[in-house]
This record gives sequence, structure tokens and C-alpha cells, in this order.
Amino acid sequence: MRISVEECANLLKEQDNILILTHAHPDGDTLGCGFALCRGLMKLGKICAVENADEIPKKYSYMYNDIVPIKFKPKYVVAVDVATETLLGDFEGKYHIDMCIDHHTTNTEYADNLLLEDVPAASETMLKVLEALGVEVDKGIANCLYTGITTDTGCFRYASTTADTYRAAARLIDAGADNGTINRVMFETKTKTYARLERLALDSMRFYADEKVAIITVTQEMYKLTGSNEQETEALAPLTRQIEGVEVGITIREKANGTCKASIRTFESVNAAQLAKEFGGGGHPQAAACQFDCGVKEAREMLVEKCQEILGKEE
Amino acid sequence: MRISVEECANLLKEQDNILILTHAHPDGDTLGCGFALCRGLMKLGKICAVENADEIPKKYSYMYNDIVPIKFKPKYVVAVDVATETLLGDFEGKYHIDMCIDHHTTNTEYADNLLLEDVPAASETMLKVLEALGVEVDKGIANCLYTGITTDTGCFRYASTTADTYRAAARLIDAGADNGTINRVMFETKTKTYARLERLALDSMRFYADEKVAIITVTQEMYKLTGSNEQETEALAPLTRQIEGVEVGITIREKANGTCKASIRTFESVNAAQLAKEFGGGGHPQAAACQFDCGVKEAREMLVEKCQEILGKEE
Repeated sequence: MRISVEECANLLKEQDNILILTHAHPDGDTLGCGFALCRGLMKLGKICAVENADEIPKKYSYMYNDIVPIKFKPKYVVAVDVATETLLGDFEGKYHIDMCIDHHTTNTEYADNLLLEDVPAASETMLKVLEALGVEVDKGIANCLYTGITTDTGCFRYASTTADTYRAAARLIDAGADNGTINRVMFETKTKTYARLERLALDSMRFYADEKVAIITVTQEMYKLTGSNEQETEALAPLTRQIEGVEVGITIREKANGTCKASIRTFESVNAAQLAKEFGGGGHPQAAACQFDCGVKEAREMLVEKCQEILGKEE
Repeated sequence: MRISVEECANLLKEQDNILILTHAHPDGDTLGCGFALCRGLMKLGKICAVENADEIPKKYSYMYNDIVPIKFKPKYVVAVDVATETLLGDFEGKYHIDMCIDHHTTNTEYADNLLLEDVPAASETMLKVLEALGVEVDKGIANCLYTGITTDTGCFRYASTTADTYRAAARLIDAGADNGTINRVMFETKTKTYARLERLALDSMRFYADEKVAIITVTQEMYKLTGSNEQETEALAPLTRQIEGVEVGITIREKANGTCKASIRTFESVNAAQLAKEFGGGGHPQAAACQFDCGVKEAREMLVEKCQEILGKEE
């Protein structure tokens, strides 16, 4: 069932012992939402915690390192920025989920669902929820929500960013968000190992379909050569789409077991979520992902073929 | 003489036949300021134009391609985003400058000077001027000012970006600014020639002073190999500072005559403008530039030595 911001706030006010779940392979938006809600509910005197199936990348530690963990039996479970239950990863089915706060149009409505349309980051919606809850947005909360907004908008760069998104950012900076530091950590800092991987990845870039498709292929061998790892490949995805004339940018990364995953980035001419769906994946219209049971070469061939089909149709 | 936003607006109201000058090698902020002011004054029925000493990069053409050029004898000259008269390039001394609207703390106050402190882009100040003039901000003006703000803040990324900057952006988007398209053109589009140059530049990156200094060296040979040119090297400057642990990032580019120019990017620990000043240059605390009469090798040695001195002192 769809619920409004006010209904969402009222439901949360009635509950206690609240467990908040983020999606697996957590990013800035799901974590920002989760820890901001956790901090807000704690300010209201409630017992709550954030959990997820995977390790949280260290760069997000400022979101939670001052939160004292509490052990409790969850009575109410809220998923944040989780479009489908499968995105909970190993936590899928572990809990009955009562509420979902999200911004993905692909959301499968598996719980009481606060889903505002045309909001580029779930953290922007979460700010509204906290305001409706009467929570005073402090520096800790502001840092979480600012992180979510800036990471999901590519630092306010994507076309999905609205005037309201900028206004939310202004409010969060007024509340003390360290925008300069957060953006530096999220967008301006490359580890030496990532910088080496990026160079190899750029060398691997190949063009297809009249140079409208650019594909980067990252192999396990590259991780060995650079000291980098799969976690660091996420940042490669936007590089493909940046080349003039490219409409579909794909980053294929080989997993340790020889299968692979593809991150797809597109411009308006191609729907990335639909392309990913052809291979059992999903996501946003301009950013999506899918998994393959085969190796990188075979996956690349299938992706190129499908892209040619889509780009051919378009003309 | 320093003037306020209101005094600036009142002076402009009294004038006609107004020539607006941007700095040489014009960027998004100086052009955004210039064409927004020009459009605003034209809406008030005034005769005016924007001029500068160099060619305007094509990507900014949307700022002016619907403005019908008028020939007139300038009676009042306004420089926008021009910290010193030398930055007018070949136009230095060509006109008596009556007014300057700027945001550089290094401004030499060579005219009636509207200089608001802690404003990351002159275009943010220009929005205030246009509002004080009673100009209705239309889509054309909004696109100019949004461009100035986003380019001078690295797409709202730099620490200098304030809550007011975000609010200005929100107002401009409300007024019709094409934020998605502008950011794509300014930040997400690499020409194939630039992409090739970037790969060679990254290969040239060397580290000094306990890896706190990273230097990229771009030679004329690299332009030949990649089909790129000096104009495209501006985008390389931020890459040096992005490597973890680097406090000073320098891009040295060789000119056709064998001399060279250095773009300096730093974090708070080092003042880029002061470092540039040691070699006769200048700029902002975290982004500055200077010229050398010698070749790239000699310039690099001098820069490394000075950096070691500065970083040594700091400890």
C-alpha cells in the first residue's frame, strides 16, 4: 500500500524496537537514509538499529561511528532505498518487512510504501519524513542525508536533480552538513590502487555500434596487477558514458568465480533499466545493472548485440 | 571603491551603451556573468554587448547565439569576474573600466568594485545584481548564471560552495535553467581527442615529496599524438589532486614556443595562490596558475623544490 509522508511519520511514531534495513552492497543513499532515520528515531527516544547483509565501505564510517549499538528484538522493520526484496541480498526473507521508504519507480511495493516520484535520492524523501516526525535535523543527520543526495545525484550533476533537491541540500548545509569534506571523500579521492585500475580500465575501453556503445572490461587479472578489488570498480561505470557520441556505456567486471556483472549507464535515448531487464537485471532509466552466468567475453557479445538491436530500432 | 549590490544596480540603471568585458581565455563563470548581465540590461531597454580578447569555446554558444549583435560606442565599461586588468589579455588598456563585478579576493580594485566575499562564483553575485535591477530572470539568463555557478564550483563539489549557492541554483532551475544538459556538457562530455590526451597525461603523472605532490606533464608531442590541443588541458588540472594523500596537484603544459604554464590545485594545507605567486602567478587558495619562461623540465624542478619547502615548513 502506498502511504504519504505524514502517514509514514505517524506509523513510525507508534512503533518502537525498529530495525532499519539497507540494500546489499550499500551505497551512500541507502546508508544515508538508514542512519539518518536511525538517528532521528533515537532522538525521539526509540530503540532502533541499522543492519544489512554486506560490509559497509569504510568511507561511510562517519555516518555511524558515534552510534552506540543496542541489542533488541525487532518489532517493526523498515527497508530504505530497497526497490525489491531481492536487493536485500543474504537478508532476503530474514525479516518480515513492514515499511519501505524508497524512490525507485521499479519498486515492487512489498510493504507499506512511501514512494515519492521524481526524487533523485531516497535521502531527499527521508528529510521530509524526519521533518514530519518533528525531528530537529542536527549535524549528524545532515551529514547522512547530504551524503545520500550527493552520491545518488553524482554531486548534483544528473538531469534528475531538481530545484527541490538543491533546496534540500541548502537546508542540510544550514544544519551543519560538511558538504566540502563529504564531496571530497565521495568524488575527489582515488586510492592509488583505484588510480592504477582506472588506467587499465580506460585502456580496455572498446567502441561498438558506430561508437555509440563504449565497453570497459575489468578482469580478475587487473585486480592482481593493480592491488585493487571489485568494490573499487563501481566508480568506473560513469567513465564509459563520458566519451562524446557514446549513448550506452557499459562496465563488465569479472567475478572471482569467472561469471560477471555489467553496470550500464545511458543517456535519454536508451533506457538502461530495460536493457538490464533483458538479462534479468534492473535499475533506473539511466543507470542499471545485470548479472551473467557466463564469462566477460560472452556477456560482452550479448550486450553488444542487444545494444545494436536497440540503437538500430531507434533510428 | 567598493560598492554594494544596490549601488551597483543604481549605477547600471543610470548608464547606457554598456560594454561588458570578460577575462581572457573565458570560462563558464566570466561568460555566464557577462551574458546574463547583457541579457538583463537589454531587457531594461539598454544597448550593450559582451567582448573579450579570445575566442569563446563553442560549448558556451547557448549563452549568446540568440543575442543580436549591436554596434555602438561604449560609454560605460563593466568587467566581470576579472580580478586584475592583466587578465583582460590583449584587451588590457583598450578601455577605461568603470565597474568591476567579481568574487576573487585577489581583486586589485581597479574600478568601482562589487566584490562579495565567500561567494564561489561571480555568477552568484550577478544573480543578486539582476534581482536588484528588477530584471525578471528568464530561461536565457538562468542558463548563463547556472553555468557560471556550476563550472566555478566543480558542479557544487568544492568546499567553497555554500547553502546560498545551492539556493541560487534552485532559483535558477525554477526559472528554467537546463541543469541536466549544462552539467552534461560541462562535466560529462569528453571528446575522443581529450580522452586520448587524458590517458597519456595520467601515464605522465609522477609523485614527489613523500607522494604529497603529483605532477602531470603535457607536451606538444602529446597534442600531436592525440589530436588534442592546449584548450583541452584545462580539464586535466583536477585529476592530480584526486589521488589519495596528494596535497598539491600540478599540471604543467608545454606551449608551442617551448615555455610552459602550470595549473595548481591544492587542499586546505597549502595555499595555491601563494605558491603560484612565487612564480608571478595568482588565483584562488585552492586553484591557481603561473607562467614560466623556461621548459617543462626546469619548471617542474622549480615547482617541486618550492613544494618541498612549503610542505617541509608545515610539519
